[in-house]
This record gives sequence, C-alpha cells and structure tokens, in this order.
Amino acid sequence: MSIDIATETFLHKELILDGDAAAALFLEARTANSWSDEEISDETLQAIYALTKMGPTAFNGQPLRIMWVRSAEARERLVEHMMDGNKAKTLTAPMVAVLSFNTEWHSLMPTTAPHMADMLMPMFEANAESRTASGNNNAHVQAGYFILAARAAGLAVGPMTGFDSAGVDAEFNAGSTHKSFMVVNLGKPNGGLDRERLQRLEFDLATVTL
Amino acid sequence: MSIDIATETFLHKELILDGDAAAALFLEARTANSWSDEEISDETLQAIYALTKMGPTAFNGQPLRIMWVRSAEARERLVEHMMDGNKAKTLTAPMVAVLSFNTEWHSLMPTTAPHMADMLMPMFEANAESRTASGNNNAHVQAGYFILAARAAGLAVGPMTGFDSAGVDAEFNAGSTHKSFMVVNLGKPNGGLDRERLQRLEFDLATVTL
Repeated sequence: MSIDIATETFLHKELILDGDAAAALFLEARTANSWSDEEISDETLQAIYALTKMGPTAFNGQPLRIMWVRSAEARERLVEHMMDGNKAKTLTAPMVAVLSFNTEWHSLMPTTAPHMADMLMPMFEANAESRTASGNNNAHVQAGYFILAARAAGLAVGPMTGFDSAGVDAEFNAGSTHKSFMVVNLGKPNGGLDRERLQRLEFDLATVTL
Repeated sequence: MSIDIATETFLHKELILDGDAAAALFLEARTANSWSDEEISDETLQAIYALTKMGPTAFNGQPLRIMWVRSAEARERLVEHMMDGNKAKTLTAPMVAVLSFNTEWHSLMPTTAPHMADMLMPMFEANAESRTASGNNNAHVQAGYFILAARAAGLAVGPMTGFDSAGVDAEFNAGSTHKSFMVVNLGKPNGGLDRERLQRLEFDLATVTL
C-alpha cells in the first residue's frame, strides 16, 4: 500500500466509490508483466467493452477499435513488431488487445451523433488533419476508460507503447483505416510485481488553482 | 437506462465492481451541461487527483497538468477563448478544470522513473516531436482516468474540446511548457439532461478477435 491511513480516511469521505473499488481501479492496481494461467473468456472481453464504450468522447465519435489477439499464430505475428523487452510478456499474457483508432470515425456520425452529422461530417471529411488528431486524441481518452474497465473486470493490465505501430498496421490493419497506438496485455493477477510502485506527482506540482 | 436486464445480469457476473459503482462510473453516468449549485471543495479536487495520478502512463511520465478554475475573474478570461455554445456552461459550472500536458514531462524522470532516466531522458531531450506526441497521448489517457475519477467523487462531468487552445495557452500558460487540450466542467448532478443518450458502437463493429 502506498497511501497511509490518514489519506485513506480523507479519500473515503470524498468518494462515492467504496474502498475496495477505489483500490481495484486506481489506488492499489499495478501494471502487470506476468499473470495467472487462467484463460480470459469472450464474455469478459464483452464486459470490458460494454463499460469502455460508455465513456464520453468528442461528438460521441468513439474512434477506438480493439483487436483481441487470442491465437498463438496472431500472437507470433504481433510480437515480430514489438520491442524485444516486450515480446515475452505479450506471448505469455492470457489475452492481448491491440488498440487502434479509426481515422474515418466521422463516417459513423449519422449513427453516433445524428443531431450534428449534417454540420460536422463535411467539416471532418474536408480536414484529414483535424479528423486524425481528434481520432488519435479521443481514442487515447478511451484507452484510459479501457484500462480501468479491464480492472473493473478483475484483470491485471499491462499497457505498452513499445512497438512499431507502422509495422503492426501493415501486418494487421492493411487496407483498413485503423492506426494502432497501444498494445495491452491482460490476465488474472498472479500477485507478481517487478518493483516498488513508481512515484506519482504531488497535487501541488501537477495542479494549480485560479 | 440504456441496458436491459439480461445485459445487466451478464455484466454483473463478469465485474468485480458492484452495480452501483459500474453505473456511477460507466453505465449510467451522462455528460452534464448543468449542475446543482453546491460548491466543490478543495478536498474533492484533491481526491479526484489522488485517483487520477495512480493510473498508468508510458514511462510513468504523467504529463497531465490541471488548472482548476474557481474564481469568477479567471472564468471570464477562460470563456473568452471558448466556442459560444460552451461559454454559459463553463460560467455556471461549480468548478472547471483545464487539462494541459507538459511538453517537458521528461525532465521529471529522475523522480518519476529513476530506473530509466539515464537512458530515456537524453533520447526525449533530443527529440521534441516524440516527446510532444508522447506527452499529448499520455495526457489524453490520463484525461480518461480524470473523467472517471471525478465521477468516483460523485461529480457530473462535462468534457469539452470546443475552445481555442492556442488562445487559452497565451492567456494562462504563457511562459510555461503546458499545452491545453480539454476543458472539463464539474459539479454535483442536478438530474438535468439535454437529450437521450447517444448510441454506442456494438462490440462486433468496434472489435475483432484473432
């Protein structure tokens, strides 16, 4: 535990989340590099997505796309494009999710934002730079939801950016408009940790009040 | 409620989060455009940050910086740079947070990632493009944590990107290395909603399994 009792008491007073949930999602969860052997069911993946998709995105655009990499064959193709230090983790994780964003997310606006589609779709259609930046940024916000949603499903999460995204896109996203940006290893926790928790920035360093 | 009983039963089986918590963070929370008049205490802001900071970031870099805009004077300066449709919301919200990322986040690596600082700090120091992209992307992931953390503190959240970030930076971040990317209105919920919930993408549209 990295927070003391005084901090815990203060937090519990301020949160509507109970202590166990706050611990599981935020306070005690740790990035994992190894997992129990237990398989991750398709139902668990659906539950993770059922939470993830509800988080807000700009224009309800939901640019995040998820490739669940279960098979050994696909796992081998994936790690070919990963940094050496990340390969073993991704080969041994019970489940791997490659997170991408769809650069053409705006094309679904008649479904996702019918009240704004007439105005915004032509604007984003004409501006690939703004569309791509918005897709990238909002998919990263959704990656934050995804990581906490996977923890809410009882999984230990290992998010990584140490891979060649152009290589992954050529291997898996060729012919599509999906751009990979994060690989997330997933599994039931096995209690193993590589190191002490790294330090977080204090409130007064990271925030200011006007 | 947008999910039916069958879905709820399925979800409850898969989650370690109880139904109330899953509803408050993900399933029933809605983007807010109006709030109760209740003030938001400094302790609540500290609790939100205490959760937000614990979420994982690449290299533990924590590029997110938060400007809490409480005063009427700062609120007036802020809305000068916002889209007309967003001004009233930000003037009336009990609290406003401007989220920025620090383009020089790597300079704190001796504190945040002492085991990697010798290797990575010179690399990021030499590559402003990679440093800025990583700062932008990881701060957006942290914005996902922030939105769910504010909900965990019982607040209704209104995140917005409809503002002139260069104008906000000139106004508030001049002389710093902080780049604003999101304005988040915060307050206790008042039950008011503008419209039906917008549609979310189905599992089979947004994900694929290999």
